[in-house]
Amino acid sequence: MGDGGMANTEQDPGGVIALARDLIRCPSVTPDDGCGIAALARVLEQIGFSVTLLPFGEGAARTPNLFARLGTGHPHLCFAGHTDVVPVGDDSAWAHDPFGGVIHDGVLFGRGACDMKGGIAAFVAAVRLYLEQAPRPQGSISLLITGDEEGPATNGTVRVLEWMAAEGQIPDFCLVGEPTNPAGMGEVIKIGRRGSLNAHIVVHGTQGHVAYPHRADNPVHRLLALLGELTAAPLDAGSEWFEASSLQVTSLDVGNTATNVIPARAEARLNIRFNDLHTGADLAGWIRTVATRHAPRADVGISISGESFLTEPGAPVEALRASVRAVTGHVPRLDTGGGTSDARFISRYCPVAEFGLVGASMHKTDEHVSLSDLKQLTAIYTGFLEKVMR
Amino acid sequence: MGDGGMANTEQDPGGVIALARDLIRCPSVTPDDGCGIAALARVLEQIGFSVTLLPFGEGAARTPNLFARLGTGHPHLCFAGHTDVVPVGDDSAWAHDPFGGVIHDGVLFGRGACDMKGGIAAFVAAVRLYLEQAPRPQGSISLLITGDEEGPATNGTVRVLEWMAAEGQIPDFCLVGEPTNPAGMGEVIKIGRRGSLNAHIVVHGTQGHVAYPHRADNPVHRLLALLGELTAAPLDAGSEWFEASSLQVTSLDVGNTATNVIPARAEARLNIRFNDLHTGADLAGWIRTVATRHAPRADVGISISGESFLTEPGAPVEALRASVRAVTGHVPRLDTGGGTSDARFISRYCPVAEFGLVGASMHKTDEHVSLSDLKQLTAIYTGFLEKVMR
Ligand SMILES: [Zn+2]
Ligand SMILES: [Zn+2]
Repeated sequence: MGDGGMANTEQDPGGVIALARDLIRCPSVTPDDGCGIAALARVLEQIGFSVTLLPFGEGAARTPNLFARLGTGHPHLCFAGHTDVVPVGDDSAWAHDPFGGVIHDGVLFGRGACDMKGGIAAFVAAVRLYLEQAPRPQGSISLLITGDEEGPATNGTVRVLEWMAAEGQIPDFCLVGEPTNPAGMGEVIKIGRRGSLNAHIVVHGTQGHVAYPHRADNPVHRLLALLGELTAAPLDAGSEWFEASSLQVTSLDVGNTATNVIPARAEARLNIRFNDLHTGADLAGWIRTVATRHAPRADVGISISGESFLTEPGAPVEALRASVRAVTGHVPRLDTGGGTSDARFISRYCPVAEFGLVGASMHKTDEHVSLSDLKQLTAIYTGFLEKVMR
Repeated sequence: MGDGGMANTEQDPGGVIALARDLIRCPSVTPDDGCGIAALARVLEQIGFSVTLLPFGEGAARTPNLFARLGTGHPHLCFAGHTDVVPVGDDSAWAHDPFGGVIHDGVLFGRGACDMKGGIAAFVAAVRLYLEQAPRPQGSISLLITGDEEGPATNGTVRVLEWMAAEGQIPDFCLVGEPTNPAGMGEVIKIGRRGSLNAHIVVHGTQGHVAYPHRADNPVHRLLALLGELTAAPLDAGSEWFEASSLQVTSLDVGNTATNVIPARAEARLNIRFNDLHTGADLAGWIRTVATRHAPRADVGISISGESFLTEPGAPVEALRASVRAVTGHVPRLDTGGGTSDARFISRYCPVAEFGLVGASMHKTDEHVSLSDLKQLTAIYTGFLEKVMR
């Protein structure tokens, strides 16, 4: 490690800034998270965590992961996250070396700064600060860190959770450190996510000449009727904690350039982001039923990339909310919108909420985090530990 | 010329078979109708026609055409057709040389056999037979023959008609010799054709992520609503002489492979075959109105390749019908279905009907015509001349 282990000053509470820089300097682009997991493992061992390295998968799919736990009692609070980062893109477009850990005018630049090496650093710093005040907590603290969140996510969080379940290490509550705030610290705690389903519909017809439509069977018209029914009405009007589900047709493909020919085949692709009023299986059944009604010979391929989930607000979420409010002055909104995260896997085992940095620059050129946000997040996590652990 | 000029026996009435073979042996594939027009001009001059060669267009677009007239009186009956043929395709798939004029088992094979060198030969033979009985007819007979019907048709029939109008040569009635019979001689006389319109609709939206549809503007959904309205109801239920108009969406194109992205653009192509209850302009206006309602920023490109037209049955059509019945024993159906032909241009100047050979093999491998059909068509045209000319 660099200077991370030593730093712990008013300028760098718990060493959050030093650790965030150290982690950024390790170019852990998914799926080659060579150094991220290892660097973090060393830091956690120094603090006193029992670290288990959990690589899963073979060959190119091999993914480094770790589970680290401090103590064995309850409550057992787990922090989940990832050390892998998305590719840099055109690195000549970056104002600062994406793996340099450069600080300029109070802002730390680098790939992973907000998504989510900064979040991990803030949690580790918060544990250090918490332990200074409570060296022997009754409960236990763990970290579930994967090197494959930005990639296919096959050998990451899902596999670690299976291992944790088999070892009796399932936590009482899990906090995911993804960047949840759109523009400023304290805006949003995520307590659930919508589900996501993709469908690919291929309608088969009978080719023919446009002058003799009765001798043909136009698959385009069948597809239009089918999609017309699927998009005729909103799926719902939203539920207590969720906005309305949304169906978006993302592509239509026939590719027929002959203006006098009725084509033999027409395809569509659609995505549904759905709330807790639906399950992926119900929606898949509905799509298949509608498709069959309009096009009995249609091929319908459906993949459900995640079910919706919700952690009903309770003591841990309220503790997090109170800590956010104490540090930032804002009462964060409890939200379930946006894309998917590994929280969808964790929700199968225990309650889960998400709170982290400001995500505006994530996955973009010049990804960055302000040092004051890093310090605020460290304070929020520290306050949360104090309220939850006791 | 070969043996065409001499033949006129019971086996080859009016020399129809010999002339059909001669014309087939001239490989006049569109747009290179080098020999077809010239060969026909020599035959017509031998019979006594005044032949005017009317090449139009420059360079690669130059198209040979001819107008030939025998006599100057009225009624003035015109026969219209084309000597160009569609390409052979895979000539190794042909059982006989497509330009050999081979007769096998009473069937003449070759490109153009039924569409429509055989039809032209039958009319020329009919004129010869008619003149044997009526050497000095009161009325006049003309032929409007183009070398560009199967191609873009820009410098063919349209230009010749303009020239005929300028020269005071517009006929009282025109008979187009396209193959109108689906399976057997005597089935169908065409007295009109539907119009044809093509539209290309491009809907512009705003690209975005499927998880945030309110920040995007999905052009696919606008296109679906637009096409849903255009296809919601039949355009009409048909009219006295026409079947119902038909709108066929022939292509849909987005080409978006990213399942989580709302695309920026969606396109559709459609064709309308329309009857005499509509005009191309009315339909174009309707499409633009519907498109604008659902997608104000849509680009709508429309091309009208022909208006519908109808020759109300009257004396000439009844004469043709009577002659068909006398020769074949069948009462032909008066029809307006199928694709387009140059009759759509002629209809702007004078009444027009279409009757020719059996079209089952047109544009296909081993295009052919039976010798007995050629003789029947010659007899039908001869009877028609006798009834109409007087
Ligand atoms: Zn992330
Ligand atoms: Zn033709």
